[in-house]
Amino acid sequence: MSADHVSLVTLGVSDLTRSEAFYTTLGWRRSDASVDGVVSFMRGGAVVLSLFGRDDLAEDAGLEGGFAPGPAAVALACNLPDEAAVDAAIVAAVAAGGRAVKPAVRAEWGGYSGYVADPDGHLWEFAHNPGFPLHPDGSVRLPDEN
Amino acid sequence: MSADHVSLVTLGVSDLTRSEAFYTTLGWRRSDASVDGVVSFMRGGAVVLSLFGRDDLAEDAGLEGGFAPGPAAVALACNLPDEAAVDAAIVAAVAAGGRAVKPAVRAEWGGYSGYVADPDGHLWEFAHNPGFPLHPDGSVRLPDEN
Repeated sequence: MSADHVSLVTLGVSDLTRSEAFYTTLGWRRSDASVDGVVSFMRGGAVVLSLFGRDDLAEDAGLEGGFAPGPAAVALACNLPDEAAVDAAIVAAVAAGGRAVKPAVRAEWGGYSGYVADPDGHLWEFAHNPGFPLHPDGSVRLPDEN
Repeated sequence: MSADHVSLVTLGVSDLTRSEAFYTTLGWRRSDASVDGVVSFMRGGAVVLSLFGRDDLAEDAGLEGGFAPGPAAVALACNLPDEAAVDAAIVAAVAAGGRAVKPAVRAEWGGYSGYVADPDGHLWEFAHNPGFPLHPDGSVRLPDEN
């Protein structure tokens, strides 16, 4: 197996309880593999979301200076079956304590998407892309997928 | 479908050609859905990796101030079948232009992991976790997974 896949996405967070509540509201389910007060493994689609203290993550990676404040140049996309589901996800994420970053708009690429930041500023794009059909687990099917 | 999944992970990068070469070396495959000079969709496991200019991503998200410099408090984990595969992945990633951040070590949680930063500083954890068996597509099976 080569190194050509993402197994888990770990988000460094400042308040594990707050983040767990946020993602639970969105439909993620906390796994029993979680360790109270240390790490929360959230089950959803094909990839596990791992919530871990910012400082713990920096320490685990051996980054002495820690992480920079402010938004990171990473966005997690949650693709959805239609525009109404995008609108509903944005409303739900903001109601759960996320910050509305960009309202959903029709995009040049033929779809519809908007952005919400989670309680730590991690960017989520909620999108409908008619060119990328969805697998049942929420991952996308690229046009040239085998 | 609720908003409980990651469909794509978008990394903001400063040199699309360099990043595409880096991820291709690791085994990711460029999709024909990519748009030359704008966005590269990389096919791998269950989740698509999308490479997009840092400034383009900030603009797309409507973030006027752009992104903070320095490492982001996010790590993408690529789980592998054994310790030798972790070592091989770290060597390959560094040879491809990544930066060795932390050598692989035995972890408290019973596995083995190390960290490499991609050419833009995005953190990857290469890990073997005997408690989280792997699906064929490189996603993990949590102990309480249905």
